[in-house]
Amino acid sequence: MKRILLIVAYDGTEYCGWQIQPNGVTIEAVLNRELTRLLGEEIKVIGASRTDAGVHAMGNVCVFDTDTRIPPEKISYALNQSLPEDIVVQQSKEVPLDFHPRHCNSRKTYEYRILNRAMRDPNCRRNTYFYHWELDLSAMRAAASYLVGEHDFQSFCSPATKAETTVRTIYALTVEKEGDLITIRITGNGFLYNMVRIIAGTLLEVGNGKRKPEEIAEILEKKDRSATGPTAPACGLTLMEIAFVN
Amino acid sequence: MKRILLIVAYDGTEYCGWQIQPNGVTIEAVLNRELTRLLGEEIKVIGASRTDAGVHAMGNVCVFDTDTRIPPEKISYALNQSLPEDIVVQQSKEVPLDFHPRHCNSRKTYEYRILNRAMRDPNCRRNTYFYHWELDLSAMRAAASYLVGEHDFQSFCSPATKAETTVRTIYALTVEKEGDLITIRITGNGFLYNMVRIIAGTLLEVGNGKRKPEEIAEILEKKDRSATGPTAPACGLTLMEIAFVN
Repeated sequence: MKRILLIVAYDGTEYCGWQIQPNGVTIEAVLNRELTRLLGEEIKVIGASRTDAGVHAMGNVCVFDTDTRIPPEKISYALNQSLPEDIVVQQSKEVPLDFHPRHCNSRKTYEYRILNRAMRDPNCRRNTYFYHWELDLSAMRAAASYLVGEHDFQSFCSPATKAETTVRTIYALTVEKEGDLITIRITGNGFLYNMVRIIAGTLLEVGNGKRKPEEIAEILEKKDRSATGPTAPACGLTLMEIAFVN
Repeated sequence: MKRILLIVAYDGTEYCGWQIQPNGVTIEAVLNRELTRLLGEEIKVIGASRTDAGVHAMGNVCVFDTDTRIPPEKISYALNQSLPEDIVVQQSKEVPLDFHPRHCNSRKTYEYRILNRAMRDPNCRRNTYFYHWELDLSAMRAAASYLVGEHDFQSFCSPATKAETTVRTIYALTVEKEGDLITIRITGNGFLYNMVRIIAGTLLEVGNGKRKPEEIAEILEKKDRSATGPTAPACGLTLMEIAFVN
């Protein structure tokens, strides 16, 4: 028996998120089905991050146990033969049997992409959020700086969250523009339910002048979801990378 | 009566190209149907460029005549309400009644995008061509330089072409890389049937070492389609812009 880690990329547009659901197709369900078929054993993957419906990934991670004789590095290639074109395993490798992707320290990086122009662009409609009002990037950057570090992010998570603590550390939070595309890139030791999308929705309200950057400090103090902006749409969000720290 | 010009962007993945066909949905057919519905007159657009099945656009152009009282600049917004999400009109404006988008001088710019990495990326599968072998960019650039200028491009067009002459001028042809994405950008006074895709397919053969850059000069001399590389897949190609030169 060995434990295999997969790095998984997907276009989440057509999926009801990562986690298996009674109604609707999920990334986890498709991986379980195709791994079970490929390896001839019943496989149930354990995911690192349960991304929401419509959210994308370049580097989500999951593990599973198997007795297969297929070399660990070859499983990705074999599996990609039968996966739908919107899910592509980027890498497969063996990890220690006690490695659990949710019970160890990690740094996760997400990108929230905003297409900021007068008209929609059909060629990036699936993985950007279209926003046609003008945005003040320096205000967004100033607001972002208040979020970096260790804070209680209760104002920035869905009340539906089940986390034991709402304290998290953000290591980096940048707002970059290239052409029409604004990318909010955020790295942290963990994210609460809807946290990145609420940060994006709040930074958008700073960018359009509805809020001042300094308000972010007060919002953190309030520990109240109603103090923040709306949850930005799922289509703009991509889980870029998960780095496991010893 | 006035003549209206539309700048049209589309994700061509689901379409049988621009031009109306007996079997299969085309961009032209969808525009005619939705304009006819919107304006209450039978509308038949005249397109500047009949892109192939699966080819995308950011700036294809078409014109049509109408008696509508909708202000020309507002037609784009009204039309976008009913168009499918993979076709978005970027601009609408009035032009002289004798303006014909194919009977006037123009500069067209295309981009051919190659995703050059070990594994596919599901989030850009629709508008890049995935190519996992290593590519020598400086060789590709050297090859590209032979194509700039006025040449007989008979070797670089489908034998099915119906053009009166196969002489065309390429004003610029660049090969740029950003991250995993290689973009071949080409501007010319006109392109023969499949010409950009044959140029891309031939530059790929130079990039992977199958051909030397200097061979391009001989290939042009041969005036023979069998001297060039394969027609690169449609999914990588986007018509970026058409500039009309009085």
